Amino acid sequence: MGSTTDPSAEVPAGAEVLYEDTEAGVDDLLPIRRLEISDHGKGFVELLGQLSPCPAISKADFCSRFAELASLGDDHVICVIEDPSTGRIVATGSVFVEKKFLRGCGKVGHIEDIVVDGVARRRRLGQRIVMYLTEHARKAGCYKVILDCTAELRAFYEKCGFVEKNVQMAMYFHR
Amino acid sequence: MGSTTDPSAEVPAGAEVLYEDTEAGVDDLLPIRRLEISDHGKGFVELLGQLSPCPAISKADFCSRFAELASLGDDHVICVIEDPSTGRIVATGSVFVEKKFLRGCGKVGHIEDIVVDGVARRRRLGQRIVMYLTEHARKAGCYKVILDCTAELRAFYEKCGFVEKNVQMAMYFHR
Repeated sequence: MGSTTDPSAEVPAGAEVLYEDTEAGVDDLLPIRRLEISDHGKGFVELLGQLSPCPAISKADFCSRFAELASLGDDHVICVIEDPSTGRIVATGSVFVEKKFLRGCGKVGHIEDIVVDGVARRRRLGQRIVMYLTEHARKAGCYKVILDCTAELRAFYEKCGFVEKNVQMAMYFHR
Repeated sequence: MGSTTDPSAEVPAGAEVLYEDTEAGVDDLLPIRRLEISDHGKGFVELLGQLSPCPAISKADFCSRFAELASLGDDHVICVIEDPSTGRIVATGSVFVEKKFLRGCGKVGHIEDIVVDGVARRRRLGQRIVMYLTEHARKAGCYKVILDCTAELRAFYEKCGFVEKNVQMAMYFHR
């Protein structure tokens, strides 16, 4: 019980940071690309902090985790949108491909950690990130893609083409 | 839309196959171990078929997928319980460790595909499988472990120490 933060206070994936699904125009000018090591200096970790407690990570630790994930190739993808006017990362999300035995050695895409910067809302960046990750899972041969979100974000993900399926249960480890 | 099965008819993880959480005695005599290649001939794939559509897999395909997962080491664990009186796999479950950047390069355990054979209920095998996988995630340094289940299985997982957290959304790809 030595934790200095309350795990139950974690903001679930996507909560409160996705309300950009309005009638505002689509900003197609900002490309989506995969995470790069240089994004450590472009506010990527700070952006994640809008989703979940996120202490600063040293460049060395960032590179180490980056290499671990890169070794998984297309089975783990983190994408970002950079605002060229500021050089900052304003949206991100990830998907990883789980390989199963069921469904004839089927695969399932798991979408995680969707965040849009509070100053970059109403530009459909979140929707574009979700579409990018969903398409990656489809091309990877997944038979489905899943994600967990708060009840408040259900409508947003329904507009992205998702349907509610089950309940998410969690157990937190206090350290 | 060439699928011959209705993806929406998939039985969600653990549904209807876990109702063994009774006052019956704990059968500690059946050890939990990690999946082995020889389990292909012990009904492992057929057991998964009690959870989700699961066509037969050739030994070659089984070995190939087994090798892919084995290459992930402790980041992807499938455990099984074998009934020595029949030589059949009667319970299984898996957990994989997702590596993140948030929470100081934190890790999350994802529990999937919990199944107990219909003929082996009421022996707390499912509970023991969940405990085994949960403990693996904790030892691996995860700050939490999560899973998705039907609302009917909420009480079972609450007894295992989980709390309801979010809703699971899904998108199926028709092929």
